[in-house]
Amino acid sequence: MILKKKYKSAIVIIGNEILSGRTQDSNTSTLAIWLSSIGVNVAEVRVIPDVQEIIVDTLNLLRSTYDYVFTTGGIGPTHDDITAQSVSKAFKIKYEVHKEAFEILKTYYKPGQFNEGRQKMAWMPKNANLILNPTSGAPGFNVENVFCLPGVPSILKSMLGGLTNTIVGGEPIKSHTISLRTVESEIANSLTKVQNDNQDVEIGSYPFFQAGKLGVSIVIRSEDQTKIDICNSQILKFVNAKKIEVVER
Amino acid sequence: MILKKKYKSAIVIIGNEILSGRTQDSNTSTLAIWLSSIGVNVAEVRVIPDVQEIIVDTLNLLRSTYDYVFTTGGIGPTHDDITAQSVSKAFKIKYEVHKEAFEILKTYYKPGQFNEGRQKMAWMPKNANLILNPTSGAPGFNVENVFCLPGVPSILKSMLGGLTNTIVGGEPIKSHTISLRTVESEIANSLTKVQNDNQDVEIGSYPFFQAGKLGVSIVIRSEDQTKIDICNSQILKFVNAKKIEVVER
Repeated sequence: MILKKKYKSAIVIIGNEILSGRTQDSNTSTLAIWLSSIGVNVAEVRVIPDVQEIIVDTLNLLRSTYDYVFTTGGIGPTHDDITAQSVSKAFKIKYEVHKEAFEILKTYYKPGQFNEGRQKMAWMPKNANLILNPTSGAPGFNVENVFCLPGVPSILKSMLGGLTNTIVGGEPIKSHTISLRTVESEIANSLTKVQNDNQDVEIGSYPFFQAGKLGVSIVIRSEDQTKIDICNSQILKFVNAKKIEVVER
Repeated sequence: MILKKKYKSAIVIIGNEILSGRTQDSNTSTLAIWLSSIGVNVAEVRVIPDVQEIIVDTLNLLRSTYDYVFTTGGIGPTHDDITAQSVSKAFKIKYEVHKEAFEILKTYYKPGQFNEGRQKMAWMPKNANLILNPTSGAPGFNVENVFCLPGVPSILKSMLGGLTNTIVGGEPIKSHTISLRTVESEIANSLTKVQNDNQDVEIGSYPFFQAGKLGVSIVIRSEDQTKIDICNSQILKFVNAKKIEVVER
């Protein structure tokens, strides 16, 4: 039997606006769903402030721990956009004008509009690989196993398609949800048994309200569809025995 | 001059459902806005899986680094709810039935409905302080500077009112937003000057789309309203000089 490598990643959300509560992060969910689809697990997420020392230390810790690190935010033209400088410092690589990025931005903006602020977005770690931006010109970049993406959710989303073939992942992580008209305490014991019998499958239990009624969604996750199917039938067995209604969500 | 203490906290989101992308976290924003209002800064957020060793290590690191640590998630009745065990282990405190929590839950449920799954929610670190839950009975708990709250956003929200007087914070962190009909690159240089002149104020710049038009929100944050006012007038000065329109958001 060949044991397949499992790929692990961390997401680093760089941005005071998330820490202040002003903005709700949605990039974690976008990245995690995409990463699952290409067989990369998200092991942890950190939200950190726009402070160079913290960004550098966090990146150096996480890039040596995980296969991949994805950052969001801090690659725009203003004073609080310090991701590119910080990545340069973390890798001890020169921070300079990236010729290809400069040309892309110069072509993107009308003549006379490629001002100093916009030119700042071409400054990157020397020889960084560009991550093309089909929405608003300014590219992200990649150094070794660190991938730097923008914070604006719609722009980030539009850049993932171009990245998919760059990332080496494992088997896509599949997921199956069973939603029940019950409460967690009714199924807790039976569910514990299923989890104990299937320790390499991730089984989660999540209460919900829908149309004024309580319910529980059971989520089964694995790279192996057969294992998901086994858990599914074990769960449906006790659900039927207890006459718990399965509902659509 | 008396230097006032600044209070710092970390938020730990415990939950595979956030790491898989299935659920989008909204508790960070709720907690951060509440903490700002009672003068506690959020220095970092970590999202970690339902794995005891990781929860224990993360808590032990963060509780010795910050004034407060807030956890969300993992305090329900199912097998993946392991926050209370993990906190007990982190503090090396016995994990046992909490009498007061047991009485609260016994009173909350109808006779015959207080089953084994529900009784599990009364297991906590010995002598933990309870955080009362006005929505669904099951209390959260607090040990030293660690506060454990549920993951369901509406329930978490309903428990903060009762916590406010428990937390010692500093001056409320105030925030002022100026929204402009412009793009970041137009204001980047002027904004850098304002930030350099006011280094202890947090100034952020966030692009937005509204009714099909681009804009930028500048957010000024400080405990000191006078400092916010000074930045505000410096920003409005260059905004007026450049004839940039101020818009409502």
